[in-house]
Amino acid sequence: MDVLIGLLGCGTVGSGVIDLLAKRADRIEELTGLRPQITRILVRDVHKPRDVNVPPSQLTTQATDILEDPNISVVIETIGGIEPARSFVLAALRAGKHVITANKDMIAEYGEEILAAAEKAQVDILFEAAVGGAIPLIRPLKESLTANVITELNGILNGTTNYILSKMTSTGAEFADVLQEAQDLGYAERDPSSDIDGLDAARKLAILATIAFQTTVSLDDIQITGIRSITAADVRYANELGAVIKLLATGCDEGGDVRLQVGPALVEKSHPLARVDDAFNALFIHGDAAGDLMFFGRGAGSLPTASAIVGDVIEVLRNIRLSVSGRLGAMRMVAKTVNVREPAPTRHFLRLEVSDKPGVFAQIAAIFADANISMESVVQRRLHEQAAEIAIMTHAISPGVLKNATLILRDLPDVRFVHSVLPVVQGGNH
Amino acid sequence: MDVLIGLLGCGTVGSGVIDLLAKRADRIEELTGLRPQITRILVRDVHKPRDVNVPPSQLTTQATDILEDPNISVVIETIGGIEPARSFVLAALRAGKHVITANKDMIAEYGEEILAAAEKAQVDILFEAAVGGAIPLIRPLKESLTANVITELNGILNGTTNYILSKMTSTGAEFADVLQEAQDLGYAERDPSSDIDGLDAARKLAILATIAFQTTVSLDDIQITGIRSITAADVRYANELGAVIKLLATGCDEGGDVRLQVGPALVEKSHPLARVDDAFNALFIHGDAAGDLMFFGRGAGSLPTASAIVGDVIEVLRNIRLSVSGRLGAMRMVAKTVNVREPAPTRHFLRLEVSDKPGVFAQIAAIFADANISMESVVQRRLHEQAAEIAIMTHAISPGVLKNATLILRDLPDVRFVHSVLPVVQGGNH
Repeated sequence: MDVLIGLLGCGTVGSGVIDLLAKRADRIEELTGLRPQITRILVRDVHKPRDVNVPPSQLTTQATDILEDPNISVVIETIGGIEPARSFVLAALRAGKHVITANKDMIAEYGEEILAAAEKAQVDILFEAAVGGAIPLIRPLKESLTANVITELNGILNGTTNYILSKMTSTGAEFADVLQEAQDLGYAERDPSSDIDGLDAARKLAILATIAFQTTVSLDDIQITGIRSITAADVRYANELGAVIKLLATGCDEGGDVRLQVGPALVEKSHPLARVDDAFNALFIHGDAAGDLMFFGRGAGSLPTASAIVGDVIEVLRNIRLSVSGRLGAMRMVAKTVNVREPAPTRHFLRLEVSDKPGVFAQIAAIFADANISMESVVQRRLHEQAAEIAIMTHAISPGVLKNATLILRDLPDVRFVHSVLPVVQGGNH
Repeated sequence: MDVLIGLLGCGTVGSGVIDLLAKRADRIEELTGLRPQITRILVRDVHKPRDVNVPPSQLTTQATDILEDPNISVVIETIGGIEPARSFVLAALRAGKHVITANKDMIAEYGEEILAAAEKAQVDILFEAAVGGAIPLIRPLKESLTANVITELNGILNGTTNYILSKMTSTGAEFADVLQEAQDLGYAERDPSSDIDGLDAARKLAILATIAFQTTVSLDDIQITGIRSITAADVRYANELGAVIKLLATGCDEGGDVRLQVGPALVEKSHPLARVDDAFNALFIHGDAAGDLMFFGRGAGSLPTASAIVGDVIEVLRNIRLSVSGRLGAMRMVAKTVNVREPAPTRHFLRLEVSDKPGVFAQIAAIFADANISMESVVQRRLHEQAAEIAIMTHAISPGVLKNATLILRDLPDVRFVHSVLPVVQGGNH
């Protein structure tokens, strides 16, 4: 029996879905007893030339041709962004259609509303492709690892920033030059803000943290710092200290108090995340029974994203076949506090520019001593005539205490800049 | 409603399951509407002191107390080995009980029989814990990644050998010394053969390859080499060549021709598998749509194994609740050839001991030139008065061609030993 599918959007991801579904239709029919068939595709311009081979009769510019067609029982949304995607998805769910989406923005911001609409209509809403592209993350967290209390998430969830930081590490180039190159190659958007300022990673973290910590997390709960301020000097000092700089999306749950942040950090080279380079994504998890786990793979791209979407299609068909649609996804949310407790102490990296004259380092050391911050290592280098650069690795210290000390440092006449203050993720026995 | 569970075996894994199920019973009931409760535990000696707190009345030495109790609907098997585990599991399935097992030996050798018995009885048989401990591998391969044709598997699946090789790498020690130390610490068995000769990894590979390549793979299909012959010198040369030595379980599917082997290999340091150290396991996969993926975590231990088993318990309960037991696991097997085609050419590492006199290297070079094998790099070192050691990295070459050349080398009077011939797994853009 054929199951008719409406596809919203026919860009990079949509085209990959059309290709992959056609290629795997026989196998999916063998596995589920149902044959997926895309019958209608919503596009902006039916005359635009396309890479993928679709009968022109399937194209439409009217969403209602899909949303109001009673023969279409599954909708795949690949438009992206909030509107009109959200209205289309809600309409599809209310019309009793199962929905598969790769839309992280929509799920991060309107996930509660959308999941509630799906539950009410007793249909499936699946979004494996929204985080980590081809990497199975949502389903393992919701199923295989349910026996665990997840206490830590650490993810490299944005491919563009990881490409930029990897390039800065391998070439020693400055941020602006690598960003320009990435834009020229099409790896970064013309307006790169949502990637490099950390918003994209934060949206993905909000989705993962909601599932892993079983508590509703919103974007506002996440403290976000981007990578614009990272310089070639930071990357070089990190390397000398045995680490690489990554944009990390971090969540932890300490007995019901959840902490969430996105920002650049030093990752020691012996940590598995340090090896996740270029456009790859990875999620590192600690579960109280499973221990440390890491999932690694392609976080974006036409076929990797289609891999996750078609995996979701297979689940939707299986659920239809078994008459259990809308009955598997239920999560039980637990009330937790967010960002209430002080973060746990960790080692930190600082880079300062100071006047190159006697006694400056002694002043800094005195401020650190007063704040009870001890230093693990210090590198000082002359920059030019009057200025020197100091890179400091502290022992574990609470970020609040360090922040206060940094404010005092900034007021010293001989401290010209406090360039970077980055947490350090320890490697070791993973 | 309570679901009564019979536990076969109360060793390290069984105790972990008792602990974790007790700890998570409330949450599992919330998620599935059913409360898992272990009521009977098969042990060899009811009087033996145990780490885990169980009412003595639950212990029995009679398997029939579990297998023939109609109130018990789920059996968890943690005895290990083939018999009596296999007979117990078959009896449980035939009695209509769902079975969860961590038993890789049994599934690798009798998987077909056991899966058929489960299908006939319309019950669930789940074995996520049999491969890779806490790492979700079976379910992602069977579900999330179904849209892919998996073309490559590369796994570090045995913790004992990975511990030994990691220690040899970090300390420079010889195999025998590290094995002895691992035995003293309890990380290696008194009879370590099934680990260090590669059988354990091969069993896990047979299970994964059957699922990933969708064709029945038996242990006999796998060419197995262990790590006994790996020396500190191999490890040192590997390091100089930018690689580490790992015991790899490798499978590839080239358009329906499957190749499988377990053996030591050089893994370049830029490959994600190179960072998988100590007792950690990992599986690296290439799917035609997803691209490269890696799953990493604890491959053994009481709680990590229990994490996978209790994850399976939750699935069994959910299936009971939704009345779909025994209907989700079906695989569609495809006929494929195994080990028929020549393996693809890869770079290889060789270590030879030769007489330390002029002209020896020229003889070796001539044999390689005749066989059309070109060398990427060569290191020669004097060992003592009369002997020198040569480490060679070849360019990509078919293993068959290299084997023939090696046989000719062995016959040269000035070649004393061909110590190691190991394939090289390329790093690069993962």
